[in-house]
Order: sequence, then structure tokens, then C-alpha cells
Amino acid sequence: MKRVYNFSAGPGAIPEWVLEKAASEMLCYGESGQSVMEMSHRSRVYEEIIANTEKLLRELMNIPDNYKVLFLQGGASTQFAAVPLNLMKTGKADYVITGQFSKKAANEAKRYGDVKIVADTNDKNNTYIPKLTKADFRPDADYVHICFNNTIYGTTWQYIPDTGDVPLVADMSSFILSEPIDVSKFGLIYAGAQKNMGPAGLTVVIVREDLLGNAKDFTPTMLNYQVMADNGSMYNTPPTYSIYICGLVLQWLKEQIGGLEKMKEQNHKKANKLYDFIDASKLYKNPNNKEDRSMMNVTFVTGDADLDKEFVAAADAAGFVNIKGHRSVGGMRASIYNAMTPEGVDKLIDFMADFEKSH
Amino acid sequence: MKRVYNFSAGPGAIPEWVLEKAASEMLCYGESGQSVMEMSHRSRVYEEIIANTEKLLRELMNIPDNYKVLFLQGGASTQFAAVPLNLMKTGKADYVITGQFSKKAANEAKRYGDVKIVADTNDKNNTYIPKLTKADFRPDADYVHICFNNTIYGTTWQYIPDTGDVPLVADMSSFILSEPIDVSKFGLIYAGAQKNMGPAGLTVVIVREDLLGNAKDFTPTMLNYQVMADNGSMYNTPPTYSIYICGLVLQWLKEQIGGLEKMKEQNHKKANKLYDFIDASKLYKNPNNKEDRSMMNVTFVTGDADLDKEFVAAADAAGFVNIKGHRSVGGMRASIYNAMTPEGVDKLIDFMADFEKSH
Repeated sequence: MKRVYNFSAGPGAIPEWVLEKAASEMLCYGESGQSVMEMSHRSRVYEEIIANTEKLLRELMNIPDNYKVLFLQGGASTQFAAVPLNLMKTGKADYVITGQFSKKAANEAKRYGDVKIVADTNDKNNTYIPKLTKADFRPDADYVHICFNNTIYGTTWQYIPDTGDVPLVADMSSFILSEPIDVSKFGLIYAGAQKNMGPAGLTVVIVREDLLGNAKDFTPTMLNYQVMADNGSMYNTPPTYSIYICGLVLQWLKEQIGGLEKMKEQNHKKANKLYDFIDASKLYKNPNNKEDRSMMNVTFVTGDADLDKEFVAAADAAGFVNIKGHRSVGGMRASIYNAMTPEGVDKLIDFMADFEKSH
Repeated sequence: MKRVYNFSAGPGAIPEWVLEKAASEMLCYGESGQSVMEMSHRSRVYEEIIANTEKLLRELMNIPDNYKVLFLQGGASTQFAAVPLNLMKTGKADYVITGQFSKKAANEAKRYGDVKIVADTNDKNNTYIPKLTKADFRPDADYVHICFNNTIYGTTWQYIPDTGDVPLVADMSSFILSEPIDVSKFGLIYAGAQKNMGPAGLTVVIVREDLLGNAKDFTPTMLNYQVMADNGSMYNTPPTYSIYICGLVLQWLKEQIGGLEKMKEQNHKKANKLYDFIDASKLYKNPNNKEDRSMMNVTFVTGDADLDKEFVAAADAAGFVNIKGHRSVGGMRASIYNAMTPEGVDKLIDFMADFEKSH
């Protein structure tokens, strides 16, 4: 068995340490005599798994006590509806569009209330993050929504916008756990797990308690944060195995990496090395504002669509897989999430250099 | 490692054949060099996995071509809302209550329209299934909803009610794949995977095409069957790994068991042996109507709550786990889903006989 270097934007690479542990425990977790996949979610052994996963997440992200952590399903796309359904108390929300997912989120919210698009970076092909101040937001909005890292375009908010007393809501699917973030600056954070947390099928919501309890009356019960919070994410059967894998990823982050400061150091080193190589190259180009570049999704093009295609095929053959850009933008994208090793990035750079020489 | 006999009502036992295969492929699926958990859902290798899973399900259940198969998230509880949101075209639906989950489903539907409770078996503690004819249902209802197997009480519909032209909707979470069923008699079937299909976090919906396209305008996009059908369950990232495990379970059903007729034979033999033992015993009692008994969830009591408790503890110590009845009804419940081996049931009967002798 030879493992490839997986640059998938999501579901993305998972640390081998996690996969090995999961494989070794597949038929019997600890002394339980069962796979985690088979466990009753009401059993004591599983209750420990979910409690420990939440504890590790709180510890790693330094989540304040007045925030609930919810383990949900349906991906960020379900949250695009759940956020307005739960938080649009008066019916007004401000959205910042910096890519396709924030646009989708805004479009879903428009179905439930008055949505103001505060800024839309589509004017420059989503190559930058807008500079916004408190004055840009409606002071009577129920919340402001941003997408913290744009997986498709490869940009990231390098600052937390000041929204005054208006709760800030962030889709952190492709940012969460990549570096420390001050949770207390947000009213709600949500993330699909399939980039930095574990398998697809688990969605984590971190929500300030005072924002609960305002769901619209037609909100499906399963999308009501208050119900989920009151039941410790066990109103019905949660995605038990995915939560267990998430717990292993968190354990890896804590014990093998040493926490989010260390993770940040490694991630920035990886990304900057790749960006430096791209910037110095004559073949490759990253289109984004330098100061807004993502440390997670590094996009690049050769400027020639046919050559891009050739690159993707050659990379794939050489064991660098899923490096094709999103179908809507083309080019290439190396998603270098937490689980992508520094060695993987070095090898990719070597490959890119060789490809450049021969082209 | 010693594996226990797992009688959990869900998440339930998974065939060892499946767990072993999953463990062996955890770091590398086929020649892909990746875990299935890490694969892009848009990659060719994953597309094959999901296509093959659907194909196997269609084959095993003999699903007609005019039905869509959807791989969703959120469990049956999310379907409690999705069904009325999508199918309540005129705003009327008939519900049959035969236990807690059908009651929950009815209560959720009441939030979206006019719900008529056609029958409620709570009058006899949900120990039976009502005998209903076409005349019991409103001919202008948008659909009739039933829960086909009652996990908590251990009863099953032994007939498919005739609803005339009104589409029949069934929650089959704890029945699906346990034996053949004529899908063409239903408008929609849904099931949480965590009993007979795979891990929690995957929900399968089988829906007749002509029922699509009527979602209420405030339906969250992710709960809109039409959107999911149009996108082949990939409007967003599906629960990729859970779908893969479901595929392995289906492969096991086909290749190791030999299909649903064989599965039925084994399941009925298992359940009847256990019921025969209970009926002949002086200590144990099953409270349900004989003809309505579930082949999946066998409930029993000693008649003495303290003795029930002692039984559960002794069983657990002897390696028969999760045999406690649902917290709302007490007593015992042996969930003997597809993955519970005939040997497991035999051993349980031996244990029950020994316990009876010593008490």
C-alpha cells in the first residue's frame, strides 16, 4: 500500500495517526467488545466519547463557558438555513459575499428575511477580502454573516470585523482548528467537519447561549439550536462514528501537534513556502491579494487552460491527487489542511519545479 | 479482543465481515492510496462507491425505476419535518400512531398542516397494530404516514394498508432490509441507517418521482427532495464514509447472506425461536399481540422491575449488552437486526434459561 498526497478541498486528508487508531479499534473499542459504529449512543462508553470530544474541542479552541457546542448533521449548507431560522429575530441580517459559499448562504437567508449584502467581492473575481468597519453594518441587524475562509478562491479574513453589538456569524468550515481564533468575538461559528475535523456528515456549531430560543415557528425541530442544546446534541441519534473520528483528530492535534499555536506555525510555514515558490516562478501564478491569501487553500494557474489540465494529470500520475481547481473556476488548488504534512508540501513544490523545467 | 453480543436498538450491531473489510481498507481503499474518509466526493473513485451503493440497494430491494434513492443526513427525525414540507401539497395528511416515533412524526407534521390521527394504539400501550381499510383514510389527504416497525414496543405491520390513491409514507428505520417489501406499494420510504444499513448519520429516502416538486416555499434547501434528487444526493458533500459502509453492508447482504429472502428466513427463525422460548417460560413475558410481533425488536419483562434490572446487569456482565428496554418503557429488549447472528440469539436463550433457573 502506497498512500498518495491528497490535496482534496474536502473531504480532505485525515492524519494517518487517526486512521491507524480507527482501524485498530474498528472491531473493538477499548474493553467494550464493540466497534464505536455499533454502540448505542445512550451507552456509558459512548457518552464518554462524545463528552471527551466536546471537552477537547473546548480546550483546543478555548471556547468560553457561555457557548454551547453542538454536534449536528447536514453540512454547512444546512446551516445556511438554520442560521436565519434561528437567529433572525427581527428579520434582518447583513451578509458579506466573498465567494460561492457565502453567496449561497445569503441566498438561503433571503428566503427568510431582509438580507443586506454589505459587500460583494465578485467585482474582482473574489480575489480579496473587503475592509469593513462597524459603520458598514446595520446596527439593528440580527446578525452579520461571513465565510471565514473561501475554499474555492483561496482567501481568508485576516481580521475579525467589528460589528459592534450585532452578533457575528462565521462559516469556518475550511478554517476551524487551523490556528487559534478568539471565539468570544463571534455569536456563532459553524463548520462542516470534512476539512480539519473529521469525516463528512458531521457539522459543528458553537453558539453563544443568549442567541438561543428565537427560532421561527416553522423551523424543523431538528434545525432548532435550542432543542439540540437542551438535549446535548442527542435529541435523536447523532452521527456517532463521525464524532468519534473527530475526537481522534482533536486528540492528534493536542498530543501529536501540541495545540493550535503549533498547528498555526506549521500551517503558515507550509503555505508560505508554497506561495513563495509560486511567486518566484515564471509558470505559476496565484491571483489573490497577497495579504488576503488563505493558509488552507492555495490556488494557482499557469495562465493556459490546456497546460493546467496537463499539470493536473501529471500531478495525479505522480501521486499528488485532487489538485484540480473547483469546477467553477478551473486551474489548480492545493488544499493543505492540518493533515497535509510539511513533507507533502515540499514534495509538491519539487514536482511543480520539475514540471516547470520541462514546460 | 473478545466481541460482545450487541442487542442495541440502534446504532446496532454491524456484520463483522463489514467491520473487518472497513478496517483493512481504512488507510487505503483499493488502489486509491486514500481512505474513503479522505476522498473528494467528486472524485471518480468515490463516484463509483456511491453509484454502486445505490445499485446494490435497488437490486436488493427491487426498487422500481420511477423511484429516486436519496442519501441524506439528519436521521428519521429530520424526515418527520421533510415529509410534510415536501408532500403536503394541499395541507392534509393522515397519520397512524403505533408508538413514540410515529407520534413524534405526527406532532412535527401538525406544525405544517392539518393532521388527522387515523388510529392510535396508545389505548393498549402500543401492543398491537390496528387493522385499517381504505375507508379509514381521507381520500383527499396528501399522504398517509405509518411507522413500519416500532423499535421501542416491538411491533410490526404485517400487512401494507390499502390507502387507495393516497401515497403511503413509511418510516422503515428498524425494518428496512430485514426482509423483502413491495416498494411499489409506497409513495415514500425513509430509514435512518443505524439499524440495518450502516452507521448513524446516514438517512436513506426512496421516493416515487411524481411526488417531487411540491415543497413548501420555506423548506430549507437541504430538506427539499427535488434538489437532492436533481443533484444525485450531492447538492453538498454527502456523508461519504457512512455511504461506503452502507455499501459494504449491502454487499454482505447480497454475497454473504444471499439476498432479502434468505435474510428474512434467518431473521424469522431467530425471532421465532426467542419468542417461543419466552412464551414457554414462566419468568419472561412479551406483552404484544402475537400476530403483530416484530422480528427485529423482541421486548420482554419479568413482571418485576427489580428483577428486570438484575437481568440487565447479569446479561451485560455475561457479554449480552444493550439489552435494557427503552428508558420510556423499561423491561428488556433484544434488538436482533440483520447483523445479530443466529448463534448470538441461541446464546441469549441459553443465558435467559440459566437466569430463569436461578431465579
